[in-house]
Formats: sequence, structure tokens, C-alpha cells
Amino acid sequence: MSEADDPRENERLHRAVLCQLTEPGDPRVADLLVDLGPEGLYRELVAPSVLAVDERTRRNRADVAARIADVDPRAILDHGARRGLRFVIPGDEDWPSALDDLRFAPALQERGGVPLGLWMRGPLRLCDLGTTVAVVGTREATAYGVDLAAEIAAACGQAGVTVISGAALGIDAFAHKGALAVDGPTVAVLACGADRSYPMENHSLIETISREGAVISEVGPDLPVTRMRFLARNRIIAALARGTVVVEAAVRSGALNTANWADRLNRLVMGAPGPVTSAVSQGVHELLRRSGTVVTRGADVLELLGASGEHLLVEPRGPQRRRDSLTVRERQILDAVPVSHGAGTASIARAAGIDALTVSAALNRFAARSLVERVPTGWQLTSEAVRG
Amino acid sequence: MSEADDPRENERLHRAVLCQLTEPGDPRVADLLVDLGPEGLYRELVAPSVLAVDERTRRNRADVAARIADVDPRAILDHGARRGLRFVIPGDEDWPSALDDLRFAPALQERGGVPLGLWMRGPLRLCDLGTTVAVVGTREATAYGVDLAAEIAAACGQAGVTVISGAALGIDAFAHKGALAVDGPTVAVLACGADRSYPMENHSLIETISREGAVISEVGPDLPVTRMRFLARNRIIAALARGTVVVEAAVRSGALNTANWADRLNRLVMGAPGPVTSAVSQGVHELLRRSGTVVTRGADVLELLGASGEHLLVEPRGPQRRRDSLTVRERQILDAVPVSHGAGTASIARAAGIDALTVSAALNRFAARSLVERVPTGWQLTSEAVRG
Repeated sequence: MSEADDPRENERLHRAVLCQLTEPGDPRVADLLVDLGPEGLYRELVAPSVLAVDERTRRNRADVAARIADVDPRAILDHGARRGLRFVIPGDEDWPSALDDLRFAPALQERGGVPLGLWMRGPLRLCDLGTTVAVVGTREATAYGVDLAAEIAAACGQAGVTVISGAALGIDAFAHKGALAVDGPTVAVLACGADRSYPMENHSLIETISREGAVISEVGPDLPVTRMRFLARNRIIAALARGTVVVEAAVRSGALNTANWADRLNRLVMGAPGPVTSAVSQGVHELLRRSGTVVTRGADVLELLGASGEHLLVEPRGPQRRRDSLTVRERQILDAVPVSHGAGTASIARAAGIDALTVSAALNRFAARSLVERVPTGWQLTSEAVRG
Repeated sequence: MSEADDPRENERLHRAVLCQLTEPGDPRVADLLVDLGPEGLYRELVAPSVLAVDERTRRNRADVAARIADVDPRAILDHGARRGLRFVIPGDEDWPSALDDLRFAPALQERGGVPLGLWMRGPLRLCDLGTTVAVVGTREATAYGVDLAAEIAAACGQAGVTVISGAALGIDAFAHKGALAVDGPTVAVLACGADRSYPMENHSLIETISREGAVISEVGPDLPVTRMRFLARNRIIAALARGTVVVEAAVRSGALNTANWADRLNRLVMGAPGPVTSAVSQGVHELLRRSGTVVTRGADVLELLGASGEHLLVEPRGPQRRRDSLTVRERQILDAVPVSHGAGTASIARAAGIDALTVSAALNRFAARSLVERVPTGWQLTSEAVRG
């Protein structure tokens, strides 16, 4: 291939070719990319290596060679540009650094690694997403599920949180629609080329997202979806978002794959429960048993994301001592409680000069406020109370 | 009062009187009982103390004195016996030791402490409850909720787990019914005297439980329910059970009070989700956000209780080494991975004498099985792999 003089553009060309030559999220490719860099990997794939001794590698290389014949890197970028796509790569100003967390996460269902780059269209800059949340779920959603997905997305959108989803039928579509309804930022991550619409039923939705938010994919222009590309795509949704909410998912739903990625990446995992009798809530309930937090509406999600009231000022207050609110008589009792080797109520009452029933009532109030605690020998001050 | 010669019977008489004189779960009483013992507390309440100087104590004592005039301890026990009640106290062979955990738990809504004793009727011995679970919920249950409560209770009953509940309308009633339907052991904990039926609608259910399981209460014979007695009762349900399942509860439901007690006592807290649009599932969802595990059927509950398959034999197996399942070629690659200071794939491929793509694929498979891990400088063996 012809090389550009600018090393960044040279890297972009190599990455664009590798995108076209390899399957997205192939952990072998991601791994070799770390070791060899884009240019080294490109050479490894096209040039024969002294180590390439086995039949399998020869086959791999033959596959790549077959594709290479059709590949002109400049033409790919030009074609992408004509289709309205930019190709953003690691190190670019608008590269979303959240994706770099994929580098150390182990592969899941044979997919993993940082994407080679992202093809994208739309006005939203991927480095400016702010707080992000993924709202995903089953294609076979119920009216209950799509209402809930739209409500959660709208509440997040209204708070300025970017809603990320996969533009699939069902939950995904209503997540995007909920965000768009309140003019909230939204990103669709596709498993086909970012210039295409899949599924076709959501063509006009995806077009709207491309005008108001961003449509992105690690798959090159024109390429169709495959099962593996869906699995690869899910890791990008999870990595881009601070947390993933699953709204309706059957036990083997792809949305659970996204949630597993979120968990693997130490992102928040959230699930919206439903009737235990609903097949499309079973996967969510299973998820919630393993990990993840119950959310029932957008406000819950915002609270967990820490996005609610982020801009509110917290009024500064002087430190308040726990004893400040006690009455004189209560202080008299508290002062009679030993720091260690707990004393019985009757003995504390004698020390305080106050009757035992009153002392007992006070000690129980103090215990509820963690000023005193019960030990086998009676009552003593808690370490918090000793500190004051 | 006249005293018995047998010190155990003497203690039983004092506790029976205190039961009648004081409100159940009064943490002051529980506290003074720890310090003074049943007889000392009895004397403290009836005899004037030199320390009893304030108005409030005089009032308390006046209250107690008013009740004392009516109290004949022998008559209480005899009356209970005529009503078919035994009075079980701490130290008795059939005292349920699980209740002793209440001694160190801080009060909740002004209730707490180990009960003075338990009035009970029914053939079930409280020391023989085996694995126990509380199934509780709202009185205003839906058909969805009562079906679920009955299914969970029946599955538990079938596994020999004792189902504990409060015999209230709605969820509680169906929990008992589910257990009775499979001849499972069940215990009703009442907020009125154990000889009474509250609510009257469940009279025949409570009678059935008294013939096949146990009906218990810390409140003396004949006494009616009060709001405080419900709160006191909930701590006994939670303490008797290894775990508490909440099936349908509005945000301020008493069932949540039981779940809070379970949490405070380090018991399992479980919740059965429902539609987020259902008011009587909202309390459960809130509970699940704070603490507690999602359960959707009896099998989930049994698994969490550790009760499922307790009697199954685990087949003994020899230790399996992770490397055992590797091919010769895979071992060749694994042997080339350094123990520390990770090496890149290309370098490992050179060391192994195998081509880089094959090595990369193998390393990713190894990573999924935790044999190797990615570090900034490349790949290295995990500590598990080093140990063999």
C-alpha cells in the first residue's frame, strides 16, 4: 500500500485497512496490535514471517490475502468520507478514552480488545459525551418494557446524560427515542457499517440519531451485521457508558452480554425488574441476583450515576458534634457511661444520680444514635462518642 | 406475689407477670432485664427505688401499679394453660436460641430486645425448626403476589424448611397456606395473645396452624393487637428465620420493618420483584436497592438458604491441574510465557518457535482460563498458573 508522509495519517491508513481485513473485536488482532503496532501488524498479516510454519496460519494469511486484493486504504477512507463517515482512531482528539479500558479486560465469547478505530457520523463529539448511560434490552419487548426504557432514557436525557444503545428493535429503539424526545444526546453503536441502517425498520430513527447525536461502528463502511459483530459491538456500548441498564431481557439475550461487559469493565450494572412471570424479565432478574442494582425509573439511574444534582451547591456547614443536641439531663447520663468495660444500667443510674428507667430509656436512644453500645458486661461509649 | 420453690418456675412466674405488666419489645425493659434479671426487674417496677426521683418514673410506676392490682401470676399461667398455651422462656429446652441474637441488635422504631418469653400452642417444638424462612408482605396483595408467596412457601415446605409469617391477610396468609398445602412446617407469630385470632378472617387458618405447626406470641393471653405490638412482633419473625423474603410491600409496609430486622440481625434479606408500575412492589424494589437479593421462585430461596440439596452427597474428585487439558502445542506456548515482567506475543512466539497468530490465539484462550494475564509490558503467567 502507498503510505502517507504524516505518521498519524499513516497510522490511520493502516488501521482502516486492518478494520477491513479483520473481524471486529478479534482478541488476537487486538493483542498483536498492542505488541506490533498498526504498521507492524499490517506487515505481519501481509508479509510472510519466518515463524509462519503451520497450516492454520497459512490459511489465515490466505484469507487476509484474498481480502487484501480488494483493499485500497485511501479508497476506503475516501469512500467513508463520501458516505459521511469520519474514521476516529486512538490518539485523536475526539477519541473516547473510555474505550481504552478494554485493553486489560479479558475476552468474552471470543471478542475483546480496544477497537482499531471508530467509523462515525453525526455532530456529537465522542470526547464530549459527559456522563453516559447504556439502556439496552430485548428485541421482543413488551409495552411495559418499552415504556420503561423510554422513561429512563428521557429522564437521563433531561439531566444531560448521553444515552447509548444499539438501535435494535424493542428496548434499544425506545431508549434512543426517549432521549431524542427531550433533545438529549444519544449514540447508536451499530454492528454493521456506520453508513448503513440495521434493522431497516429503524432506518429513519438511525438517520435522526445521525443528525442529532452520533452513529458509530468499528466495522468498516458497507459491511453487514454478523452474529460475531453483535457480540463485538456490545463491548463498545458497555465501555462507552458509565453504567448499563438492562430493561427486559430473556435468559440468553444479547443485552446480558452487554451487562457482562459492563461488569467486567467495572462499570455500574443496573436492571429494571418486571413480573417474575414474564419471560423477558427473567434474564434481568438473573442478572440482578448475580450483580447489579435494581432501578425502577430514571431518577434511580441518575442517582446511581451520581449525575443527579451534580451541579447543585452543597451548603458548607460547621462540624456538628453528636452531643450538641442532648439535654442537660441526657449529658449527665452519657457522662456516666464508661469508655470501656461496659457497666450495667443500674450502675450507670447510680453514677448519674438518675432513676434506672429514665437512664435505660436514654441509653436506648443513645444506642440508636451510635453514642453507646451494648457489650456483654453492659453499656459503654462507642468510639465515635469518645472522639466527640 | 407468692413465689415458687423451684427457681426455674420462680423465673417463669416473674417473666409471665412482666409480660403482662409491660409492652412487648420495650427496649428499656429488655435492657433492665439483662442487668437486673427477671426478679430484680419485677422488684424495680413494683418497689420504690431510692433513685426514683423524677416525675416520669413515678408515672411509669403508677402505670405498672395500676396493672399490678389485676395480676396474679399463677392465675396467668393457669389461664394460659386452660387456653392451650405453654409459656416458654430462655433456658427452657425448647426455647428457640435464634431469638437470643436480639440482645445485641439496636432498637428499631423503639422496639427491641429478647422477648421475656413466648406463649405458644401447637405440636411444633420451637427448638426443632431446622432451616427457617420468613415469607411476609402486604395485606393489600395482588393475585400475582399471593400466587408467588404460596409457590415460594410450598417449595420451601416441600424441602422441609419451616415457613414463618404473621398470619395477616394477603401475603402472610398465602405463605402459611402454601406451606400447609404440602404438609410443611409453619409458624404464625401473632401481635395479640397466642390464644386469639387476628385478623378474625383468618381464624380457621390460625386454628389449622395451631393443630399442625405452632402459633406463638410474646404478648400474654387475651391481649389484643396494637400498632406497637405489630412492630415488636416483626422482630421475632425476622429473628426466628434464617432469611426473610418480602413478596409485595408498599413503601411503608410493615413487611419492610421485618426485612430491616432481618438485615440488622445479619439474616438473609430477599425480595420478589414485580412490575415497577405496581404500588405494592415499590417497597420491595426499594428494599432490593438497599440490600437483599432478588428471588423469583421457591428454588431461588432454597438455593440462598443453602437448604437445597443439603442432603445430596458431593462426589469426591481428585484435584485437577489446569494444564492437564492442554495440547502439547499449547503447553509449548505456555512454557514460553514468563512468570513476571510480561513479554509481548511476538517475543513469546519466537521463544516457543510457533507463529505469532497461533500464539496470540492460544494466549487469549489461556487468559479466559486465568492461566495468563495481560500486563502493561505484555503477557505473563498468573499466580494460579505458576502454582500449577
